[in-house]
Amino acid sequence: MEQAAPSESAGAIAVRDENGAIAAPFLAAVSGAVARDDAGELRALCLERHEADIADLVEQLEPDERPKFIQLLGEDFDYAVLTEVEDTIREQILEALPSAAVAEGVRDLESDDAVYILEDLEEDEQQEILAQIPDFERALLKRSLDYPEDSAGRRMQTDLIAVPPFWNVGRTIDYMRDSDDLPDEFYEIIVVDPSFKPIGKVALNTLLRTKRPVLIETIMDAPVHTVRADLDQEEAAHLFERYNLVSAAVVDDHERLVGVLMFDDIVDVIQEEAEEDIRGLAGVGDEEISDTFLYTARSRFTWLLLNLVTAVLASLVIGMFDATLQQMVALAILMPIVASMGGNAGTQTMTVAVRALASRELGGYNIRRFVTREMLVGIVNGFLFAIIIGFVASVWFTNIQLGAVIATAMIVNMFCAGLFGIAIPVGLDKIGVDPAIASTVFLTTVTDVVGFFAFLGLATILLM
Amino acid sequence: MEQAAPSESAGAIAVRDENGAIAAPFLAAVSGAVARDDAGELRALCLERHEADIADLVEQLEPDERPKFIQLLGEDFDYAVLTEVEDTIREQILEALPSAAVAEGVRDLESDDAVYILEDLEEDEQQEILAQIPDFERALLKRSLDYPEDSAGRRMQTDLIAVPPFWNVGRTIDYMRDSDDLPDEFYEIIVVDPSFKPIGKVALNTLLRTKRPVLIETIMDAPVHTVRADLDQEEAAHLFERYNLVSAAVVDDHERLVGVLMFDDIVDVIQEEAEEDIRGLAGVGDEEISDTFLYTARSRFTWLLLNLVTAVLASLVIGMFDATLQQMVALAILMPIVASMGGNAGTQTMTVAVRALASRELGGYNIRRFVTREMLVGIVNGFLFAIIIGFVASVWFTNIQLGAVIATAMIVNMFCAGLFGIAIPVGLDKIGVDPAIASTVFLTTVTDVVGFFAFLGLATILLM
Repeated sequence: MEQAAPSESAGAIAVRDENGAIAAPFLAAVSGAVARDDAGELRALCLERHEADIADLVEQLEPDERPKFIQLLGEDFDYAVLTEVEDTIREQILEALPSAAVAEGVRDLESDDAVYILEDLEEDEQQEILAQIPDFERALLKRSLDYPEDSAGRRMQTDLIAVPPFWNVGRTIDYMRDSDDLPDEFYEIIVVDPSFKPIGKVALNTLLRTKRPVLIETIMDAPVHTVRADLDQEEAAHLFERYNLVSAAVVDDHERLVGVLMFDDIVDVIQEEAEEDIRGLAGVGDEEISDTFLYTARSRFTWLLLNLVTAVLASLVIGMFDATLQQMVALAILMPIVASMGGNAGTQTMTVAVRALASRELGGYNIRRFVTREMLVGIVNGFLFAIIIGFVASVWFTNIQLGAVIATAMIVNMFCAGLFGIAIPVGLDKIGVDPAIASTVFLTTVTDVVGFFAFLGLATILLM
Repeated sequence: MEQAAPSESAGAIAVRDENGAIAAPFLAAVSGAVARDDAGELRALCLERHEADIADLVEQLEPDERPKFIQLLGEDFDYAVLTEVEDTIREQILEALPSAAVAEGVRDLESDDAVYILEDLEEDEQQEILAQIPDFERALLKRSLDYPEDSAGRRMQTDLIAVPPFWNVGRTIDYMRDSDDLPDEFYEIIVVDPSFKPIGKVALNTLLRTKRPVLIETIMDAPVHTVRADLDQEEAAHLFERYNLVSAAVVDDHERLVGVLMFDDIVDVIQEEAEEDIRGLAGVGDEEISDTFLYTARSRFTWLLLNLVTAVLASLVIGMFDATLQQMVALAILMPIVASMGGNAGTQTMTVAVRALASRELGGYNIRRFVTREMLVGIVNGFLFAIIIGFVASVWFTNIQLGAVIATAMIVNMFCAGLFGIAIPVGLDKIGVDPAIASTVFLTTVTDVVGFFAFLGLATILLM
């Protein structure tokens, strides 16, 4: 035979190139198979691939190829893939697919993956899909979906193994061998009392290393870290990080076990939360790189508008000194330096404060220490840059008084930058506003206004 | 008895308050016991506590209390605590403690924790401690320490379980029961060939659910994700995230198994890397909130100095138009608006680009799509804000030509902001410079220079 069977040659194509991106030949082969409606070739290409690889592939396909790709694979498409693609892409795909196909695909998933896919759908679409899922599974999914958005209840897995403390190791192992409804991956079993409250946990490696007749209660770790189902996922992530947990029991209002949170879902949460802070500080919302330009432009507009207000405010301050500026154009040339240095110094302090607040490093005790330090940093760097810029300005415009004025304004503004760089995020945090999202605008306003006012005000008094 | 035994009352104090911070009464009790050299009370307070709780407690103690606290606890102090405290604090503590005590404490740790503590020490201090550790353990630690900083080899655990594929489940379980040198926590066993190359892995839950006579090779997952020991920890973290790994085999140059990376170390890496990006964009290095003000001021100085150069550059551009400014002071009042809006729009684009590069979302295929989108966003928002500011300026200074000039400059600058907001990070990434660290300064230079030049240049041509 001249030509290898398609399944063999197809399976041999590398999924990723040396940079870890989806390899061009693989993408081209998949696109081609989709265009030719060649389900056999597509199966040969994509079966046995990891869901994360298929997810990255789906993201690289053209928008109209994606639902076609999934329908061609049919039953062989693992809907867990959809938990790994960007939100916007997932929503587009789910809208394009018939709800019966989605219901069928979602049924096979672990409960946390199913909830992840269903939670962002429109209410009626969600209901339509849920209606096609058998009663028992639907009840579990609905319970998860009833918990607030971004709560532990939404992220938990409801398939779990719970045993009473009076069982022995042998009985526990036999029970696990006989159950066929076990989660695919788990690392600990939870020990519960008769009212189904978690009272301990046993790591699988402990179970494996213990003789069969030993009682569970003698080997269990107690007390166990539990997470309330309505707890925010970010709080749950802090618990995982702090105690290096691989999983945690999720309990309802009555402290009864309802699910398990797994470390891999929490890794995503940690990633998302850090991401939110970065984006918040820069004024970008939860946009994704696959979003359209109109959506992106609109989502960034508000932030820019706020900044325009800030900038106009700063201009009004400058306008107060128009007579001074008219007499001495050097002031107009130098004034952006004072404002800009204040902005940068303030951003440094603010960024450290925002992250320390987010990671709970900044609490009651050390806040005074931190404020003192930032004040001192502001003063030290303020003086250093005052000397530098004072010298530069004096030489540039051969005017020592002008040098003295800009130096003084620099000290004032960098001190204020340190003060407000910490006061703004801490204050916002106290009143329950996310400091990452709102701090930058306030801070820029302060450093611009103070910068221009101090410099032009001092110049008016001392040089006119 | 009026007074409860110290151990009981002490053990009953809550470690954390409702915000998750170390509770004030607990901190006070520990401080008191340290001041009184009361080792018994300290043990009663701190034994049976989780290492993460003790770590947070240590951070809250005064610097001179910390080594005293550790020495009072003596053998009962778990050195794993030191892996959970801030770097600066850890270094201070290790310097204050006698090297024999540190050697003793480090010996009891898992290898990854021991390396984490030793790696930041001065060369001679490290040697002094290593010299007091028995040969075999020292050899393992040295091998890890020989790998580059921030590599998988530094983070790996060298205690692991590897079995050949021809063993059966029963033999594997018996082997695990009999070994006493097993890691405290593990979730998978690695299957190796005769040359100790990993060829598969078996999750503990699979092992538990399989009958004793079954061969390992029939239940193992293959191929296995391996990580080269000299791979950067950030790359390893991407692998963990992508494939939701709980652990991964680490191999040497000859593909032989040398250790295991665990998810909890990787969670810390993910956290650190996101942290680095946030800090990089704001111009703060790897400072911690416990650093002194002098250290902090010095570490931020370089960034501010770079920004000063940028600001002076922008001032030079303004200086080119001093004659124009002299004639029309309104230009001085309005010019910061154009520069500031460009800076903010550029920062939005740049932040999205930096994060997309860091998470490998932005690769060969979609980079053209992304550039096009950002250009369009720049144009759309540029036009919108041109209309707004054009109107505001026309009314404010009752000068329609001035409004037209600022509107045009706004479009030019916001377009450039989009262009350079993506070109700068992508270009830096291409030449191997971390875009998070260097992008901001370049971008501000562009948006300031273009903003002032476009606005004042157009004004000189059209209004003079």
